[in-house]
Amino acid sequence: MTSRIEAIYRIRASGATIATRARQIAVEQSVEMPVEAITAARVLDEIVGQVRDIRDLGGGLFEVRIGLSVETVGDDPGQLVNMLFGNSSLHDDVILKDAILPEPLLQAFAGPGHGLAGLRARLKADGRALTCSALKPQGLPAKELAALAHDMALGRLDCIKDDHGLSNQRFSPFADRVQACAEAVARAAEKTGHPTRYVPSLTGSLDALRQQMEVARNAGIDTVMIAPMIAGLSNGLQLKREYPEMAVLAHPTLAGAARIAPPFLLGKLFRLVGADGVIFPNHGGRFSYSDQTCRAIARAALSPWRYGKQQIAPAIPVPAGGMSLERVPEMLRFYGMDVMLLIGGALLSAGARLTQATEAFTRAVAEYTYG
Amino acid sequence: MTSRIEAIYRIRASGATIATRARQIAVEQSVEMPVEAITAARVLDEIVGQVRDIRDLGGGLFEVRIGLSVETVGDDPGQLVNMLFGNSSLHDDVILKDAILPEPLLQAFAGPGHGLAGLRARLKADGRALTCSALKPQGLPAKELAALAHDMALGRLDCIKDDHGLSNQRFSPFADRVQACAEAVARAAEKTGHPTRYVPSLTGSLDALRQQMEVARNAGIDTVMIAPMIAGLSNGLQLKREYPEMAVLAHPTLAGAARIAPPFLLGKLFRLVGADGVIFPNHGGRFSYSDQTCRAIARAALSPWRYGKQQIAPAIPVPAGGMSLERVPEMLRFYGMDVMLLIGGALLSAGARLTQATEAFTRAVAEYTYG
Repeated sequence: MTSRIEAIYRIRASGATIATRARQIAVEQSVEMPVEAITAARVLDEIVGQVRDIRDLGGGLFEVRIGLSVETVGDDPGQLVNMLFGNSSLHDDVILKDAILPEPLLQAFAGPGHGLAGLRARLKADGRALTCSALKPQGLPAKELAALAHDMALGRLDCIKDDHGLSNQRFSPFADRVQACAEAVARAAEKTGHPTRYVPSLTGSLDALRQQMEVARNAGIDTVMIAPMIAGLSNGLQLKREYPEMAVLAHPTLAGAARIAPPFLLGKLFRLVGADGVIFPNHGGRFSYSDQTCRAIARAALSPWRYGKQQIAPAIPVPAGGMSLERVPEMLRFYGMDVMLLIGGALLSAGARLTQATEAFTRAVAEYTYG
Repeated sequence: MTSRIEAIYRIRASGATIATRARQIAVEQSVEMPVEAITAARVLDEIVGQVRDIRDLGGGLFEVRIGLSVETVGDDPGQLVNMLFGNSSLHDDVILKDAILPEPLLQAFAGPGHGLAGLRARLKADGRALTCSALKPQGLPAKELAALAHDMALGRLDCIKDDHGLSNQRFSPFADRVQACAEAVARAAEKTGHPTRYVPSLTGSLDALRQQMEVARNAGIDTVMIAPMIAGLSNGLQLKREYPEMAVLAHPTLAGAARIAPPFLLGKLFRLVGADGVIFPNHGGRFSYSDQTCRAIARAALSPWRYGKQQIAPAIPVPAGGMSLERVPEMLRFYGMDVMLLIGGALLSAGARLTQATEAFTRAVAEYTYG
């Protein structure tokens, strides 16, 4: 007996068709061929996906639980999404809602190296929510981005991350930008006494990511941002293993809205492969996630998650996307203390008063009283 | 003046809201901050996305064309999808329909190294459609997969590809499988005189992909399969550059059905970053793509695509997913000669008569008369 992954799908079907459709997906996500044509008993017993449960959610929607062999995944997170949802992502009638992963996979992927507690310790941010802003717009030369980062850091932010659109572009090559911003933020941190981190965005092939990691490490940086759905989950995990001292914020770009449930993809899977913090679009901003979805993402990132005597460290939820100073109390009421608030454009809109606007943000977070 | 990418979106909106929504997306996919807060003239002129055209398609659907700076992409295909659709993939109301890419990007990515003509030459397949089958089920040991590959190759297939679920699993480690299958197929090809290719599926991080490329090359293999949406487009291109002699079939797993139009993603973007053949779910099989979508994918893969005096080679369309011998004439009528037909499970269902079923398939393709 092998232990199984339990993949949980939501499928649009009718009462008459759901049993067949569930079996089809179980086959599609495992052997992908007519089961009648399989003669090997071991494959039939251990590899073919098994429909474990079908629950009618009403309105033509069903929740289907399918047991998938953990052997088909091995220890590669790219292969995990391949087996969970690869071909089924091409079907319009099914979304991947969640998955329960057995111990060997939790052990193989192991989760955040630092997580919530590690980030709190580094950022000297006990007993309060964390704060973050974003360096933009792209198109500015490194020197001007560094000047913005400096003025933001004077406002005592915890993290200043690159806009996810920044990569290794001619108008601000990665090495120049990282060197300039790291120095600028360190200079400001010396003045404020607060250990603000500059968090560069790493992009490109694994080779490029690795070169950028080296540049970042040489500039004294200990936190970076990666976009797992563009970089590839396998490469993200590889990098995490090679640079265990680096904390990682995961960016949701290209993660889609509709096919893999965001709480599973961003909150659980990104966390599992090592994201210490997960950025996601907060409700009521520029994006359309509901408050329930956002709460579920935060819960997935933070919930206790144990295997054997080990545990997967919590990752810090980072709601973002059109947030403003005015929303700070409401967001802290909603998310509590274990959150990193990210306000980007609204701070940059303050122009010459960037430091003051940033200070107002960090003060509002520091002084908030949880009721 | 920089040249621009023209990204083409389909947006659900009303006549009253579409102009604002189009501007929001233009900003989201470029500077991602309030434009009023940008003071640098160069950024405003050259980097901020520009709405170029809004067309009412009726029924609450609009086609919006947005000019994006090619400078923001550089020469990284991961960054190309990031700028085309990264954050907007998180919105429910917009899909990426297509993009017109300026010369510098076409030059940087350069398309298939072999393409349709190269594959035809290698496979001695002039004046007819090409044929392919898939090795399954996963769970079988390397030796048994090799035996299946041998019997299929006796039926004179052009390509025998790994099931996309096969990776580097304990029940059939990559190196063992590739060695065994390459030998088995070479042995059969010697008997038939037809140069059948075994096409292994490469998976994992760029390091793993590279190691697997080496194993494949050492086994005398010249065609491999990669899943660009799991491996990451940047890694796929990197590998293509390092192994120019390898032809690549791109697998659509995790490519989604609904957010990036399949003709653009599979037919155009996969081709652009070097896929010599693009596998996609054919209409009327296990998947729900319409015949129009399939025709559009095939056209996108094959259409003339020129820049300056260069051209992007055509990639061969590979419709698949539940196909059968009975459908061969209809598929050839539909796709014409420039296609590689892929029948997997239906051949394997023949059991002990695998070679005969395969022969019937390749004969039906070879003897088909285009009317």
